[in-house]
Amino acid sequence: MVDSADDGGSKGNARRQFLKAGLGAAGGALAVAGGARAAEPDPLITEVQDWTRYLGKGVDATPYGLPSQYESDVVRRSVPWLTADAKSSVNFTPLYALDGTITPSGLCFERHHGGVAVIDPADHRLMIHGMVERPLVFTLDDLKRFPRENHVYFLECAANSGMEWRGAQLNGCQFTHGMIHNLEYCGVPLRYLLEEAGVKPQAKWLLAEGGDASLMTRSIPMEKIMDDCLVAFKMNGEALRPEQGYPIRLVVPGWEGNMWIKWLRRLELGDRSWEQREETSKYTDLLADGVARRHTFVMDVKSVITNPSPQAPLTHGKGRTVLTGLAWSGHGRIAKVDVSIDGGRNWSEARLEGGSSKGAYRFYHDFDWDGAELFLQSRAIDEDGNVQPTKDRLRAERGENSIYHNNGIQTWHVRADGVTENVEVS
Amino acid sequence: MVDSADDGGSKGNARRQFLKAGLGAAGGALAVAGGARAAEPDPLITEVQDWTRYLGKGVDATPYGLPSQYESDVVRRSVPWLTADAKSSVNFTPLYALDGTITPSGLCFERHHGGVAVIDPADHRLMIHGMVERPLVFTLDDLKRFPRENHVYFLECAANSGMEWRGAQLNGCQFTHGMIHNLEYCGVPLRYLLEEAGVKPQAKWLLAEGGDASLMTRSIPMEKIMDDCLVAFKMNGEALRPEQGYPIRLVVPGWEGNMWIKWLRRLELGDRSWEQREETSKYTDLLADGVARRHTFVMDVKSVITNPSPQAPLTHGKGRTVLTGLAWSGHGRIAKVDVSIDGGRNWSEARLEGGSSKGAYRFYHDFDWDGAELFLQSRAIDEDGNVQPTKDRLRAERGENSIYHNNGIQTWHVRADGVTENVEVS
Repeated sequence: MVDSADDGGSKGNARRQFLKAGLGAAGGALAVAGGARAAEPDPLITEVQDWTRYLGKGVDATPYGLPSQYESDVVRRSVPWLTADAKSSVNFTPLYALDGTITPSGLCFERHHGGVAVIDPADHRLMIHGMVERPLVFTLDDLKRFPRENHVYFLECAANSGMEWRGAQLNGCQFTHGMIHNLEYCGVPLRYLLEEAGVKPQAKWLLAEGGDASLMTRSIPMEKIMDDCLVAFKMNGEALRPEQGYPIRLVVPGWEGNMWIKWLRRLELGDRSWEQREETSKYTDLLADGVARRHTFVMDVKSVITNPSPQAPLTHGKGRTVLTGLAWSGHGRIAKVDVSIDGGRNWSEARLEGGSSKGAYRFYHDFDWDGAELFLQSRAIDEDGNVQPTKDRLRAERGENSIYHNNGIQTWHVRADGVTENVEVS
Repeated sequence: MVDSADDGGSKGNARRQFLKAGLGAAGGALAVAGGARAAEPDPLITEVQDWTRYLGKGVDATPYGLPSQYESDVVRRSVPWLTADAKSSVNFTPLYALDGTITPSGLCFERHHGGVAVIDPADHRLMIHGMVERPLVFTLDDLKRFPRENHVYFLECAANSGMEWRGAQLNGCQFTHGMIHNLEYCGVPLRYLLEEAGVKPQAKWLLAEGGDASLMTRSIPMEKIMDDCLVAFKMNGEALRPEQGYPIRLVVPGWEGNMWIKWLRRLELGDRSWEQREETSKYTDLLADGVARRHTFVMDVKSVITNPSPQAPLTHGKGRTVLTGLAWSGHGRIAKVDVSIDGGRNWSEARLEGGSSKGAYRFYHDFDWDGAELFLQSRAIDEDGNVQPTKDRLRAERGENSIYHNNGIQTWHVRADGVTENVEVS
């Protein structure tokens, strides 16, 4: 092989001849699309695929790898008019382009209230105090001496799909549903740290505080804290990303994303909820009668079709089609996902491929598209029997001012030309 | 909050006072280390952790996220003297710094024979021909119309630990064991594509060819092909990385990494193995009697302790210690991992945290270190009853010229000062 575009002549020509002959013998076969074959051979196939004639970069080129240049459109995106400033704002995971269950670490949505804190782990401390026998301060190295666990959990912001309360607004699942990610966390169960401090019997609530400019705080009941909460320091095998709370964050499986305090630095035990700003003014659900629900901690059962979707139109025409999406529930496992292609009149059970309790599940529905317009919907059911509701039912129950906890069924309209848009159907 | 280093005085001072008082009341408690408490308060705690006073980057700053600057030493590394050129060479996953089971996509080891091919997916094709009813050529979009599956699989290069056949050589698990990664793959079972082409009954072997400058080819028996092989286009949720074969690679679960052809472009069905260079001159095991084993496809049961290890010394002194590592087997599930801290005289069963068939498992052993020197070993047993052997036993069976399939038990010597080194013990 030479690192040059010039090839010796004969070997290249022999290859070209071979490819042409192969196609001819098979009747110019191209790949399957419900049996349709192209009338003329693909002109590319008659040329040598010339990247075999160039040596590529060596193993010393990229100490930390990055995606292909051909994937440069797969990025987090924000909606600038949503907030006054990018530092207290959100961006969205490009769900339409992803598959499997793990969210790529670099594409995890961000929701910050004061920008990303840049913390030197050597200087960072975690303090436990309040209604405990022994207040304690831990370094990162101290935390790593406690027994660890690994779990795959989804994190969904309670405001995910919040713009959709009043109808179909944003044209893409990245924007309607992209405040979610699903990661493998490695960390220490919080109860081990609290046992070290000795929780006093009158302690019923814990206040978790982050060390960012917003000093984010949330109150969490002790039963949840002592159940499955973690102090996590790794995501998908490596250290937390700065935007996900490096060097440590709280993990509150299945509960509102806002409670998973990033840049975690303080844990205070007390006998009642602190009723901080982010659990009174925000993260409460204003109902139609003017009363607000509070302490709506658990993220409800939910699903969305990610492909086809507005950012991923159905470009291949009739025939075999793969529909895919994600399903999740803060209550535990997903039992079933149903898919409809006619706006909810008829349902088929989708195939689940991967997922676990309080983690995101991937579902697929393989079908033959006849080319007519479609109204795609998915409906998830969790192991407790909770069924994902229609948006109309949610509005009937809660009005339109909730902002949070919109887990309604999403509809995508696929036109005959494959263009897909966000719609609502009754 | 203001984007400035100047703080209003009183609030800052009140916080400083609070932290001092808290420490005083608790007797200057620092974090636990087997009950040891520092004699004097940590001076840092008496200062305001000032990153709360700076607004960080906003949500428009990083469309594709990267690790913290404080993790800049967690990278792939190569060993320049190993090969004549970096384009046909290997680099290694920094196992010592990772946890959980998923390998971060940007840190997956690379082994190339002609550098990284840079392929435009729109131009890429996959051809199936040979002993089939209908030769076919697929575009990427065509492949995405077949039913998909998701699986977490390890990929280990058969030469992993190859330098260690003659004794302890390289000082770090990144170098002794780092030709491995564990990823969630999304792709199409290869049998669906072959069923489309119609495999003729006399076809017993498949030749897979990659479109890189080395035109890597390997022969694979049909029973494996029709079992669990995939044509994968995603890893950890997003498109394959260029260095892992973008846009498609073959996945051959549990078998030699070299067979997982990257930049996959051609599949030929035939009635015998092609006996290409990479399965005769290479990837065969030269035994002591001068005869070579060939077709040693399955990666044997294996494990390694990743922390402590030479690149991750035991810096915290006596007391509670977390030992961790990875275990895997090409035969299927890991049944058990045993850990020894005295060079193999006494064994304890480790705790498994995550893993699945033909994927990597994470294990932990939590123990109290008395400060004396340690000889750490791990020994994996898979569901078929295969037991990871000692290196001495491997050498007795195969001699020292194998290069490949070194799955022997690894020993790390931890000195009283925590410095850790690669050793062999009898």
